[in-house]
Amino acid sequence: MKRFTIGVDVGGTNVKMGLVSPQGAILSRAILDTKSFNKNKQKLIDAIVVAILGLISEKRLAAKDILGVGLGLPGPIDAERGMVNFLPNIPGWKNVPLTNILRKKLCLPTFIDNDVNLITLGEWTFGAGRNYRNLMCMTLGTGVGAGLVLNGSLYRGEGFSAGELGHMPLNEQGPACNCGGWGCFERYVGNATLLKKGAQTFGRAIPLPEIYQLARNHDPRALRFWEETGEHIGNALVGVINLLNLRLIVVGGGVANSFRFMHKTIVKTIKARAMKIPAGMVQVVRAQLNDDAGILGAQVLVKGSVRGR
Amino acid sequence: MKRFTIGVDVGGTNVKMGLVSPQGAILSRAILDTKSFNKNKQKLIDAIVVAILGLISEKRLAAKDILGVGLGLPGPIDAERGMVNFLPNIPGWKNVPLTNILRKKLCLPTFIDNDVNLITLGEWTFGAGRNYRNLMCMTLGTGVGAGLVLNGSLYRGEGFSAGELGHMPLNEQGPACNCGGWGCFERYVGNATLLKKGAQTFGRAIPLPEIYQLARNHDPRALRFWEETGEHIGNALVGVINLLNLRLIVVGGGVANSFRFMHKTIVKTIKARAMKIPAGMVQVVRAQLNDDAGILGAQVLVKGSVRGR
Repeated sequence: MKRFTIGVDVGGTNVKMGLVSPQGAILSRAILDTKSFNKNKQKLIDAIVVAILGLISEKRLAAKDILGVGLGLPGPIDAERGMVNFLPNIPGWKNVPLTNILRKKLCLPTFIDNDVNLITLGEWTFGAGRNYRNLMCMTLGTGVGAGLVLNGSLYRGEGFSAGELGHMPLNEQGPACNCGGWGCFERYVGNATLLKKGAQTFGRAIPLPEIYQLARNHDPRALRFWEETGEHIGNALVGVINLLNLRLIVVGGGVANSFRFMHKTIVKTIKARAMKIPAGMVQVVRAQLNDDAGILGAQVLVKGSVRGR
Repeated sequence: MKRFTIGVDVGGTNVKMGLVSPQGAILSRAILDTKSFNKNKQKLIDAIVVAILGLISEKRLAAKDILGVGLGLPGPIDAERGMVNFLPNIPGWKNVPLTNILRKKLCLPTFIDNDVNLITLGEWTFGAGRNYRNLMCMTLGTGVGAGLVLNGSLYRGEGFSAGELGHMPLNEQGPACNCGGWGCFERYVGNATLLKKGAQTFGRAIPLPEIYQLARNHDPRALRFWEETGEHIGNALVGVINLLNLRLIVVGGGVANSFRFMHKTIVKTIKARAMKIPAGMVQVVRAQLNDDAGILGAQVLVKGSVRGR
């Protein structure tokens, strides 16, 4: 029976892949170093194909056992036509008809979507967002992204670029952003800004995990660092909450490791600023699936797409 | 054949009502003065019932000719249970099971929703938003509200309070708002703020239609007044556009009368600040139906609800 799926989470640093059981367990994994293929899109695609076939044969499965393959990619993806518009952090990808290419090479049903959309599908189906109809899943890292489930289905937007939470302005005047705008949320809580702020706070270059550890040890500067980050996050979420009246906001990504030190100020800011009805019904929780969310979300994409065909 | 509908648009100032043909033409109208019933919810309801029955008999129609009645009310409405949670600007309404009350009195299928949601349904079906799948309809007036059509259906939010665009913050620090928050969009472009700003600009109390007339006569202060208002509107829309990747934004409400003097700065701000893909595909247009949007939107609500039962 065709019931296993393959999930592929393509990132700027590496490509994480997994064979997923019908119940949503990751049975085996593979990983590729994205940068080693950076100059050659075709070699990266070929390596992904080899790794996918490896995952299948490794478990003595055949093509007929595989329901489909789902890939998440970091950029605007035309999920309907299976087209990668472009990938800001992986050079050489522009208007690539990726599902057509992969279907020919794999002879398997293949579907693609934005990576944060797959993470959102994963958390919604297997993680923190189970049984919710209206939620946002945000990823805090180098960039700040989000996926939206509205009225019980993934909302991709008119041109598949919905969820650019990192580029919601926090202020009418604010620091320039590399998106071309200014005052963007990402310029307050993205990794680059946090590292700079950390260096200023502690008088030396300091990685974020160390600021997390310092907070665990009750260092007041570290605690304040995360509280202030939580306040910016809260300020961004107030707008989303008043506009969309969501039931749940899931916080994931590397920065979410410090969620416990930010949660209180996030909630405090929402209670202080957002309107009573939406503020009273929204919960802000940490993501549950970490790095597996995209691979599991790919199964949701495949199941939904195969059904829908 | 049961094909006519009755639309009722309940506002803080008056109640506008219309008998609507199957094709969406308003065949006859009635209007009530809301304030004259302010102290008595029951009397207002009774007056609405009498006016509805009057609209029907006036055209020599019978109950069997009426598909249903749709009412829009200015506050959070549980459209599924037919419950008015409360109306901020009409005292005495709290947890009123309005559809049950009206169905008993009218013996007609009756449905209710938030007034801006009905305006949105009206513009989407009969006005500026025809044939769009992803749009926001905003109303600029005393308050600033919005309705959202996402993935081709009205998005009401988890607790029926989505669309509070007026309370999206424009700045992390900003003027206190009567919603309890601060820096809200409405505090920059709501009528009260614009009237205050007009008085400062012109050195005397001046109504907004007069500032519109002055702009028509090329008065530079009036032109600047509307341009600055357009810039605030643009700043608020940048966040919405990056988050939701809408195809269309419809601008309605009293302040939209000056749309022609704001449009250029709205678009300029969006092009400058929003991300290329969503900014490139969104259009900002003026509402087409003016005061009729809610009455026509009520027909969309009724048709959708009767079908859905």
